[in-house]
Amino acid sequence: MLPGLPRHAAARLIHAHGTAPAVIEAAREQRLADVGVDLPIVAIAAPFAPRARAVAEATLHWAGQPGNHLLTLNDAAYPPQLKEIADPPVLLHVQGNLALLYGKAIGIVGSRTATQQGKANAGNFARALSEAGFTIVSGLALGIDAAAHLGGMAGPGSTVAVVGTGIDVVYPVSNAALDARVREAGCILSEFALGTPARKQNFPIRNRIISGLSRGVLVVEAAEQSGSLITARLANEQGRDVFAIPGSIHSALAKGCHKLIRDGARLVETAHDILEAFGIGNAYCAEAMFDELTHAADVLLTALSYDPVGADELAARLKLDPADTQASLLALELAGVVERLPGGVFQRLKR
Amino acid sequence: MLPGLPRHAAARLIHAHGTAPAVIEAAREQRLADVGVDLPIVAIAAPFAPRARAVAEATLHWAGQPGNHLLTLNDAAYPPQLKEIADPPVLLHVQGNLALLYGKAIGIVGSRTATQQGKANAGNFARALSEAGFTIVSGLALGIDAAAHLGGMAGPGSTVAVVGTGIDVVYPVSNAALDARVREAGCILSEFALGTPARKQNFPIRNRIISGLSRGVLVVEAAEQSGSLITARLANEQGRDVFAIPGSIHSALAKGCHKLIRDGARLVETAHDILEAFGIGNAYCAEAMFDELTHAADVLLTALSYDPVGADELAARLKLDPADTQASLLALELAGVVERLPGGVFQRLKR
Repeated sequence: MLPGLPRHAAARLIHAHGTAPAVIEAAREQRLADVGVDLPIVAIAAPFAPRARAVAEATLHWAGQPGNHLLTLNDAAYPPQLKEIADPPVLLHVQGNLALLYGKAIGIVGSRTATQQGKANAGNFARALSEAGFTIVSGLALGIDAAAHLGGMAGPGSTVAVVGTGIDVVYPVSNAALDARVREAGCILSEFALGTPARKQNFPIRNRIISGLSRGVLVVEAAEQSGSLITARLANEQGRDVFAIPGSIHSALAKGCHKLIRDGARLVETAHDILEAFGIGNAYCAEAMFDELTHAADVLLTALSYDPVGADELAARLKLDPADTQASLLALELAGVVERLPGGVFQRLKR
Repeated sequence: MLPGLPRHAAARLIHAHGTAPAVIEAAREQRLADVGVDLPIVAIAAPFAPRARAVAEATLHWAGQPGNHLLTLNDAAYPPQLKEIADPPVLLHVQGNLALLYGKAIGIVGSRTATQQGKANAGNFARALSEAGFTIVSGLALGIDAAAHLGGMAGPGSTVAVVGTGIDVVYPVSNAALDARVREAGCILSEFALGTPARKQNFPIRNRIISGLSRGVLVVEAAEQSGSLITARLANEQGRDVFAIPGSIHSALAKGCHKLIRDGARLVETAHDILEAFGIGNAYCAEAMFDELTHAADVLLTALSYDPVGADELAARLKLDPADTQASLLALELAGVVERLPGGVFQRLKR
């Protein structure tokens, strides 16, 4: 939060001096380590400028609320795989289930202006990987990101949203309902100071955390010039696997994925392909689950009318397991054939 | 044509002894070279069995007709790139433009049960590569092969059909019109004896000639178990490039292409990608031609009614170049929006 201290210098200074207080101490004594960046030593030596103090106090207050967590680079609870990257965030604001930061995770990203099929693919891959125990990491954007978070929350792996704003900012507003669900059922995370609004340059910076938390990154749909390709490049630099879903040569949103495949990303057709790449393919057959889901979804779709009905009522009517019914409805929602209305009721969409 | 002489032994014997008569001479003197195959020496020593003589005489008669050519492995006119492969045919029956066997060529193959989009892709790639001077080699099957031949004939590169029957057999019968066009405008070729009917086991054998004549092979659409994958494997073994067009992960006919890409085939989105792989991409912009074609085709489609009209009449009516009009009509035919009727007239297809 120090004015003028570049983001990428902070981690290096802490690494050089051991702790944040030691950095400030060193600045005061004019013996700051050379980390290859011109630094505003005065600002670092006198950190309690009124603005920095106000943000720090607000942050500490925020961290005192139930469900909120502040993690510094030196905390034992800092996600170990994120610490490995060249440029780890020095401070993480986390809200929700902290445990999701320590399991096996995969990033799923893609276009904000995704096709219905792309969103369904993102949701299906996310759900299958979540069922296999992977936490789905994405960026809480519209389109592919939203479908990936929903799919992740349909399984035990759940989801982590890494946002490019302050953690107390809801962005985009049209994702407010999803944002609330992720905070409750999953986990949301930001390195930016409280109150930081959406700034174009912060989203690519955020992307390194999505890949940094993950074993690999799946790009579902991406145009030729796309932020998802930045995430894939960062994943590559961090030694993470990159996966991409191919599509028609006539689809603009397949071009980014095709570029990645040509550059060495693994072409995947099913979640099983990803599990196989991680060496856990044989233990788990994603396809079988897909088929099961598809069958259950068919039954539901036949039973659903154009009048809204609750998931539990529908489950009771069809004598189905309520959790399965929820999962199938999610799949149908992602596929764009049913709509979730306020109050948790569903209705079939007119074609 | 000798009874009991395995196909793959013939080329090796000729290689060992220099010429076919020398092989027969050696067999008579019981000093036949060991080519790693158990051989019926008696049959080779006494080749003029009545059946072999009858086929040989019919073949020489066939070769005497205008436009027909017999090429043996030792002929100077034998295609040099085909001679390079491990197992070249010892005898080629060729009908049509012999010159097409010596230029740069690319194989385009794929499913017989192709989608409309797959056929349109095959035709567009073939036409663009033909415009760039490549001869399109394929197998005269229904689906992708047929579209590739048509596309090839729309440009100066033209087309070569390598068939799995005797060259005097038209197979499949539903391709009879295309067969006649290829014999006239392109070139047709077979290693099998005259009169050989369609036999399942001969088609994979034929495939090595498609790749053998070509610098590379493009697979447009192929199921997971597909003869096109055999052609791709043979191309690989022969040191040819393999290209594949990706598609939706939900399309059964993309699975074969995706398998090839995972195994190292180059993912291509345009004919330009192939030219680039051959190091001639910058000299020729396929995309520009596509756009041009598309624009001309749009104009034509608007002008075409559901009443049949001749290409020349249509060209005159729209004040267009007759050759361009033909090309655009071909593209529209491949795209499945117009139909070519007997007598060279076209009509728009009802949706």
